[in-house]
Amino acid sequence: MSSANAAIGLAEIEEAARRLANHAVRTPLIENAELNARLGLRLLVKAECLQVSGSFKFRGAYNRLSQLTQDERRRGVVAWSSGNHAQGVAYAAKLLGVPALIVMPEDAPKTKVAKTRAYGAEVIFYDRYTDDREAIGHRLVAERGATLVPSYDDPEIIAGQGTVGLEIVAQAREMGALPDAALICCGGGGLLAGTGTALRAAFPGIALHAVEPEGYDDTGLSLERGEMVVVDKTRRTICDALMTPYPGRLTLTINRALGVSGLTVSDDEVRRAMRVIFETFKLVAEPGGAAAVAAVLADSGRLRGQTVVVTLSGGNVDAALFCRIVHDQEAGQE
Amino acid sequence: MSSANAAIGLAEIEEAARRLANHAVRTPLIENAELNARLGLRLLVKAECLQVSGSFKFRGAYNRLSQLTQDERRRGVVAWSSGNHAQGVAYAAKLLGVPALIVMPEDAPKTKVAKTRAYGAEVIFYDRYTDDREAIGHRLVAERGATLVPSYDDPEIIAGQGTVGLEIVAQAREMGALPDAALICCGGGGLLAGTGTALRAAFPGIALHAVEPEGYDDTGLSLERGEMVVVDKTRRTICDALMTPYPGRLTLTINRALGVSGLTVSDDEVRRAMRVIFETFKLVAEPGGAAAVAAVLADSGRLRGQTVVVTLSGGNVDAALFCRIVHDQEAGQE
Repeated sequence: MSSANAAIGLAEIEEAARRLANHAVRTPLIENAELNARLGLRLLVKAECLQVSGSFKFRGAYNRLSQLTQDERRRGVVAWSSGNHAQGVAYAAKLLGVPALIVMPEDAPKTKVAKTRAYGAEVIFYDRYTDDREAIGHRLVAERGATLVPSYDDPEIIAGQGTVGLEIVAQAREMGALPDAALICCGGGGLLAGTGTALRAAFPGIALHAVEPEGYDDTGLSLERGEMVVVDKTRRTICDALMTPYPGRLTLTINRALGVSGLTVSDDEVRRAMRVIFETFKLVAEPGGAAAVAAVLADSGRLRGQTVVVTLSGGNVDAALFCRIVHDQEAGQE
Repeated sequence: MSSANAAIGLAEIEEAARRLANHAVRTPLIENAELNARLGLRLLVKAECLQVSGSFKFRGAYNRLSQLTQDERRRGVVAWSSGNHAQGVAYAAKLLGVPALIVMPEDAPKTKVAKTRAYGAEVIFYDRYTDDREAIGHRLVAERGATLVPSYDDPEIIAGQGTVGLEIVAQAREMGALPDAALICCGGGGLLAGTGTALRAAFPGIALHAVEPEGYDDTGLSLERGEMVVVDKTRRTICDALMTPYPGRLTLTINRALGVSGLTVSDDEVRRAMRVIFETFKLVAEPGGAAAVAAVLADSGRLRGQTVVVTLSGGNVDAALFCRIVHDQEAGQE
């Protein structure tokens, strides 16, 4: 594949938007004047925690599943996921009447497992640190004649996630904002590839950044070194949604063509961002969903005076963890 | 005053909307397909926790303060408030360069006091159960030659809060929804009077309900008995924002003319609603802000098949309390 544009462009994203029109939420692009004043920049937060299934993942999943043939729908779908893609696929499958089997890590947040099952999907567990989820998934696909729904490395998935970017473009224009930079939470890079494509088409000069947790900066490193880098998948991070050890081939190709560069955030920076999001925006962010806000808070000096778009990509977090983070930090401040 | 229409009508609310256009957030009207299916009704949630200052109160405050003369602005404003009106006035005053003095109960949530001060307002405390906050406020007004900004019983405050209703009308139409009923969180009745006026103008058949905490159902009782009822202000409720012992004269007149009837919710119903809002909508509701959702959850059978609009009127809650509610309930379910 020589060009990103050959694989996925604005036309594919606009098609996805038409498929999603009556199913996905047009999530708000939110700003807070006080926080803007404090940071010395204009921060626009795309609140995908308010999306159906609690994260942006529904967009790509529905775009993909809605194009299955009747025969494929009958035979069902298989996906592996730490939880957000699981819920997105399970909910899209439910809407379309497709059986869904999801391979999830044993230590996935309880709320993600419970919701995936509540949408009617069958769940099979694996060990995140020792098992090969892809091998398990491919075996199940073969056994059942089902269709595999990749979580990011697929043109229709990327086009679906790109509708986040289409909406940001329209909303930024409605707000009279011209973004200088976009910071996108990055696991496998599907949200970044899709959203980046839409943003770059509208704002040619925009700087695009992948935000990854420390230790899982496979996309940032791969872009920097010009080759696919695989990171140590036994590292721990609070951002369960962003623990991908290597980028997708397609997403990496697109993100390289878009001129993306990487940023990393620490667990402490993510916790602080979750607290600020709670206090300022009255929104519930999961750790991985708060990564881009965390990057802005950690480096607001460098972004001073700019208009910065970030994704708040999901809100699927267990109350116990959320409260440990939000309340402990408050206690620590007193 | 013989007619509510004489005091405040659609024209005044539309004027307020023009004043607020570049200052207030057009908060989203959110629904969740899963919750709708579970409840057997269509629930549309107006997320005013996403409003500037963390609640709808900014709308009325800014509408009132922006109409002060230069001389009045110089001499400043005084308000009493349990916290949301405090923040709304303080933030509007900051935007307009007006000194603000706020009389707040000693037991107001810490976040409300801290934010009010952070907006530059001076704060004076009183005892909610023994002191007369109105007497304290009037004394300060006299001493300083300042303007009193009532928290609800004022035409410009009501018109400002009515912009919530104007937005709901437009958003419901965009969503193809025709609301059968609206449940509005009710303290002194300003949000209800303004929003009810706007909703009734657009949807003549809509049923309008005041939602109040048990023990503070002064508006509901006053409407039922046809005279102003004063409740025992020493009762406790988790809904600090809704602890008004009697309705306003103007708000009661308007709400009577609108044919409003009252509903009450218990603290446990409010806690459950905060949990559902966290889980389902990924939003942070304060107790008083969750009252209308609580009323729907507690009585969904009666509303079956209907399209129901509710206000989620504020999100200013201390992390400690929020987590005690959201996490304890989760622990209790396990």
